[in-house]
Amino acid sequence: MPVANRMRAYSANSSFIRKMFEEGNRLAAIHGRENVYDFSLGNPDVAPPASVLESLSRHAASMNHGYMPNAGYPAVRAKVAEYASRLYEVELDASGILMTCGAGGALNVILKALLDEGSEVITIAPYFAEYRFYIENHGGRMVTVKAGADFLPDVAAIQAALTGRTRAIIINSPNNPSGRIYPAGTLKALAEIIAERPDIAVIADEPYRRLVYDGLSVPSVLKHIPNSLVATSASKELSLPGQRIGFIALSPAIGERDELMDALIMANRILGFVNAPALMQLVLADCIADCVDVGIYDARRKAMCQVMDAAGLKYAEPEGAFYLFVAAPKGDDLGFCQALVEERILAVPGTGFGYPGYIRFAYCYDEQTIRNAAAGLKRAVAKF
Amino acid sequence: MPVANRMRAYSANSSFIRKMFEEGNRLAAIHGRENVYDFSLGNPDVAPPASVLESLSRHAASMNHGYMPNAGYPAVRAKVAEYASRLYEVELDASGILMTCGAGGALNVILKALLDEGSEVITIAPYFAEYRFYIENHGGRMVTVKAGADFLPDVAAIQAALTGRTRAIIINSPNNPSGRIYPAGTLKALAEIIAERPDIAVIADEPYRRLVYDGLSVPSVLKHIPNSLVATSASKELSLPGQRIGFIALSPAIGERDELMDALIMANRILGFVNAPALMQLVLADCIADCVDVGIYDARRKAMCQVMDAAGLKYAEPEGAFYLFVAAPKGDDLGFCQALVEERILAVPGTGFGYPGYIRFAYCYDEQTIRNAAAGLKRAVAKF
Repeated sequence: MPVANRMRAYSANSSFIRKMFEEGNRLAAIHGRENVYDFSLGNPDVAPPASVLESLSRHAASMNHGYMPNAGYPAVRAKVAEYASRLYEVELDASGILMTCGAGGALNVILKALLDEGSEVITIAPYFAEYRFYIENHGGRMVTVKAGADFLPDVAAIQAALTGRTRAIIINSPNNPSGRIYPAGTLKALAEIIAERPDIAVIADEPYRRLVYDGLSVPSVLKHIPNSLVATSASKELSLPGQRIGFIALSPAIGERDELMDALIMANRILGFVNAPALMQLVLADCIADCVDVGIYDARRKAMCQVMDAAGLKYAEPEGAFYLFVAAPKGDDLGFCQALVEERILAVPGTGFGYPGYIRFAYCYDEQTIRNAAAGLKRAVAKF
Repeated sequence: MPVANRMRAYSANSSFIRKMFEEGNRLAAIHGRENVYDFSLGNPDVAPPASVLESLSRHAASMNHGYMPNAGYPAVRAKVAEYASRLYEVELDASGILMTCGAGGALNVILKALLDEGSEVITIAPYFAEYRFYIENHGGRMVTVKAGADFLPDVAAIQAALTGRTRAIIINSPNNPSGRIYPAGTLKALAEIIAERPDIAVIADEPYRRLVYDGLSVPSVLKHIPNSLVATSASKELSLPGQRIGFIALSPAIGERDELMDALIMANRILGFVNAPALMQLVLADCIADCVDVGIYDARRKAMCQVMDAAGLKYAEPEGAFYLFVAAPKGDDLGFCQALVEERILAVPGTGFGYPGYIRFAYCYDEQTIRNAAAGLKRAVAKF
């Protein structure tokens, strides 16, 4: 049965992350899983907080499994709003929260609600590779603006990229893959360049908001940018990625907010999510203030940095998330990734994030695996 | 913030089911919830089988919460395939099963994988109202063919509606809203008219497959139509609609099946589902052969038929699902629904299902509520 033309093209260029996943399986079959150093996938392996298991067990025994309003349980939305008001330093109530099937679901819902055929959405390279698909799903066109040398958004370049068709700017902080946190000054500058454009939304994709190091925190997009929405999830903060639970929070300053929320709720319904998974909504409401032990990721971050330092490789200083974005020798990310594969080390070329010349290493893997990769990494650099 | 033009149009024509839901809330606020006879929403209230709660509790204590392959846990897909092979009387293995976020998610994934801009999808009126949105989400155009007087597909009319752009025919049996089961002869006739069109898929939306009465069973689309896919869910059979778990099963006879499965998996990923909710995949694998007590629905069906008979109303003989599709007096479904509201009885006009002149009553409500509505129903008929 012939598939859609666009899907056939997508499959032909299937993601670099997936290619590495398949390569990892091939290598593991030959050498054994323990002899493959697979830093390709951002799949949290840290246990969820104990509160999550406790909440799950409680609701598993007594819960309601039926449909609820498409926006989610009213009590869950109210609880999330209370927490989000503190987190984002704005006044939110349940009417500004929509429960979603993770951040991936949240972003699709937002883009479905906002984009017309041919609408443009600006992304900042390096960007999470799925953005292109999410935008094109809803008739949009992705316009990429390269970050500055510090991996922070180049606001003047973004301003130059605005057109009459621009409907949204997606930002992602802490950033996947660079690990950088976008400072308040960047958010204020973004607010300024769209101050006269109520038709442009800033969409903040924030699944890593509380995975930050060295006492840093992430400035609030909702506080600094009136026309903004946050899409987030419990995937990383509560280590629940497979369970698909997250939410959208709307800036209280958005104009025609009720109409927007109606469109978001309808998008959640008609894209087939219908509602965020019911049980996980209840768990998230119980545990929303909790978080995995970030100290575990911090120790891995330091181990990964040491391993890169020992190999003489340069990287963006990671302030959050669990990725190291490393400059490829000779600027050849595709070639160097191949050289790493020969040492059974898997990472993802920056080309997949719209940023050639760099390589992403995920460090949601145990510290010993990270340290065990050190020798092979050195050999790969020496040979390349 | 302006929303997409299409979404604004959708909101303006928001669904009849939702309008009834709002009307129900308004009436309940005035008269008390117990004095409103709300048959508008198909939200199962029967308890899930005990096995579901047992499975949930077990996995809640020990489960893995991480990402898995986008198609679902391999062991879950294998277990579902084993069951589906028996159910659909074809040889299926894990490679023909994709775990999804309910049947709504499954249908969106299939349409995303198949449709190009301007592709046509045939639906049979009366149809589940969400089909139009699902089709338009992915650039398709819905083409409606009216069922025969028996509410079964008119295959000659479907054949006449085929064009070079037709990519799929969606069927739904047991049917929402008519409750009719499409017989094997209909499926064979459908197979015949598309025998020379490998580009046309029959998509069977089957969430009610095992909610059938009087010893009937639903003929297998996968057995009778080579180019077919089933989209289904545990929402009704296990009473888990809020949990969003279902699957797609592919006919083993589909050509280029691996390419199709790759496209379906990619669609599941990039629409933001990423994967079906992890915990519920495990529960479904444990409980897939179980089912809610259909006897409860059967008793309600009989009560609902008695109430209609007493009011002198005619309806399609329901063979499955939990809806009665009732002829509106004078053929005026919108008017008679309004007359029912005055008696605090809520049902959904057939206009919302592409079939004016009839009204859908959902009977997933307790028997007493059904019987309590009898007097008001009679009064509405007498006055209309």
